[in-house]
Amino acid sequence: MRLQPGAVIGILGGGQLGRMLALAGADLGFDIHIYSDVADSPAARVAARYQVGAFDDEAALRTFAAGVDAVTFEFENVPAAAAAALIAAGKVVRPPAQALAVAQDRVTEKRFFNAQDVATTPWAAIDVLADLAPALAAIGAPAILKTRRLGYDGKGQARIDRAEDASAAYAAIGAGPAILEKLAPFTLEISVILARGHDGAIAVFDVSENRHRNGMLATTMVPANLNATQAQIALDAAMRVAEALDYVGVLAVEFFILADGAVLANEMAPRVHNSGHWTPDACITGQFEQHIRAVAGWPLGDVARFADVVMDNIIGDEASDWEALAATPATRLRLYGKRDIRAGRKMGHVVRLSPLKPPG
Amino acid sequence: MRLQPGAVIGILGGGQLGRMLALAGADLGFDIHIYSDVADSPAARVAARYQVGAFDDEAALRTFAAGVDAVTFEFENVPAAAAAALIAAGKVVRPPAQALAVAQDRVTEKRFFNAQDVATTPWAAIDVLADLAPALAAIGAPAILKTRRLGYDGKGQARIDRAEDASAAYAAIGAGPAILEKLAPFTLEISVILARGHDGAIAVFDVSENRHRNGMLATTMVPANLNATQAQIALDAAMRVAEALDYVGVLAVEFFILADGAVLANEMAPRVHNSGHWTPDACITGQFEQHIRAVAGWPLGDVARFADVVMDNIIGDEASDWEALAATPATRLRLYGKRDIRAGRKMGHVVRLSPLKPPG
Repeated sequence: MRLQPGAVIGILGGGQLGRMLALAGADLGFDIHIYSDVADSPAARVAARYQVGAFDDEAALRTFAAGVDAVTFEFENVPAAAAAALIAAGKVVRPPAQALAVAQDRVTEKRFFNAQDVATTPWAAIDVLADLAPALAAIGAPAILKTRRLGYDGKGQARIDRAEDASAAYAAIGAGPAILEKLAPFTLEISVILARGHDGAIAVFDVSENRHRNGMLATTMVPANLNATQAQIALDAAMRVAEALDYVGVLAVEFFILADGAVLANEMAPRVHNSGHWTPDACITGQFEQHIRAVAGWPLGDVARFADVVMDNIIGDEASDWEALAATPATRLRLYGKRDIRAGRKMGHVVRLSPLKPPG
Repeated sequence: MRLQPGAVIGILGGGQLGRMLALAGADLGFDIHIYSDVADSPAARVAARYQVGAFDDEAALRTFAAGVDAVTFEFENVPAAAAAALIAAGKVVRPPAQALAVAQDRVTEKRFFNAQDVATTPWAAIDVLADLAPALAAIGAPAILKTRRLGYDGKGQARIDRAEDASAAYAAIGAGPAILEKLAPFTLEISVILARGHDGAIAVFDVSENRHRNGMLATTMVPANLNATQAQIALDAAMRVAEALDYVGVLAVEFFILADGAVLANEMAPRVHNSGHWTPDACITGQFEQHIRAVAGWPLGDVARFADVVMDNIIGDEASDWEALAATPATRLRLYGKRDIRAGRKMGHVVRLSPLKPPG
């Protein structure tokens, strides 16, 4: 399936990722329709059309599907039934539903990684509280207990330093199905962002080095401060994941680098990713355009990088500094059009560009 | 007047320039409303809201004005009455109306250039056919007869090689008010694109070298093949024009370079310009964002250029080659979302990026 220019691409989700996908789609001549569960979303305001509806309203989704030529999404928690309804309506949905299934469940995800020979920190599925003590004994503290589903930006997580913390942690995350992961004593967090086309071609962006604050991505730097062997392990792992899912679109895989050089996959996102927000500014083709190309069945774009970059998220009150940010040399400012500043809300980002330094 | 992020910028005109302005405005967090005289325009499909109306419908323009915080335009032939109606409605209109008045009339424009000590080819106003013979005798052939108003992309022009061609040329352009210009035997066509902020700050992009085909811009190359003295003459001239108009926004001035090194202003456009389509790809701040910044009363962005570029317009049938264009390395493809390919229609452009070569 290859869309002609002027075709309509539907996007589920109306946040900043949907907005930047919509803008990139417009750059290639596509019309974008947004489906969002909130009125007046950032993405809706840059789209040719939008529809407000719940993500579990299959009738509304069928209406949406009737007006588009292909569908993608900005978030991995699209209900399986929603994807199924769109597929049943005869629409191509990219990335494929199996990627959603893997990414929506941390246990499924870790199991899938390991099945592809992608190393992870030791982990155990926690179905009930009684599973926790033996799992903790096997894995060892410190460990992180996470909900299996619907966690993001550090939400739905509790740290366990001692066995006696376990039941409080279990309560803190809602006492539901969970995963226990040994805390990885990482020295570096990185992500690999790649795109796989409908023809199986893969294009990988340079590795991103990420710094988090309060559980949220704060800064991404490229080039990342890791050696070529580590980079290759991560790139190969991400490519195996994409191949195994018969993936089409942009895929992000986050990794920890340990002091001993081990490269452990943390999680994947079957979508464009915050740690790739530098790509439109420093590469011939950015992640948003690349995703649109893959969804449309177009050839992938050239991902050659022509600048070194530091990307800083603008979170909450930091957005009040827009005048100073707008006046900073060698820096691109992007604001997401969110109506209100709220603590912990991603309001925009800045990308600081500098000439490529030779590697090594 | 400084707009906050989230404010609404109105744009008159729904073509590709309005579309790229709307996309750049969205990148800074603004909402964009489009006013266009055609339904389903390229710009309307990426805007938060659009209104269809005639550019001489002052009641409709007042309705439009009520929904926006500032107004700009994508084309210089906005009727003076339309701009006046928007200003009367209490809206800031940038660039200023006097820039429209100058750019809409080739005689006014040339007179204005000369009054700013900006050199032009010899010219004469032609009010009636009887003016033509003495003007031609004074200026000499070959010369170009152009309508005073509403010409673009080589339309409304006729060449006069011999005195006996004059009356046919006058008939060919519609026998209305005209300007006779001595044909400038140029070796190079260039343009200067600058932005002037509401505070009088000016930021100038590197000079563009332009090649035309069939009266339309075909290719722009940067750096331009001219010496530093010539470049400075053009930059200074464009800045004098901007100052004299108390200009706010992006302004383009086209120049001819003659074999003897003379630098002659040809025409100006009080708007973003086709020969600046490379700027978003090769500079920290592109012309569209820069225009939005100026209209919004924001600080101008950094115009530092980090790549050499060749920009090719995609005209008419060339758009059928989109698959090959999309697959070209080191090249960014932009398509404008026009519904139909028509001969001579600007459908998109490609920007080929290469590393900066040191000057000289």
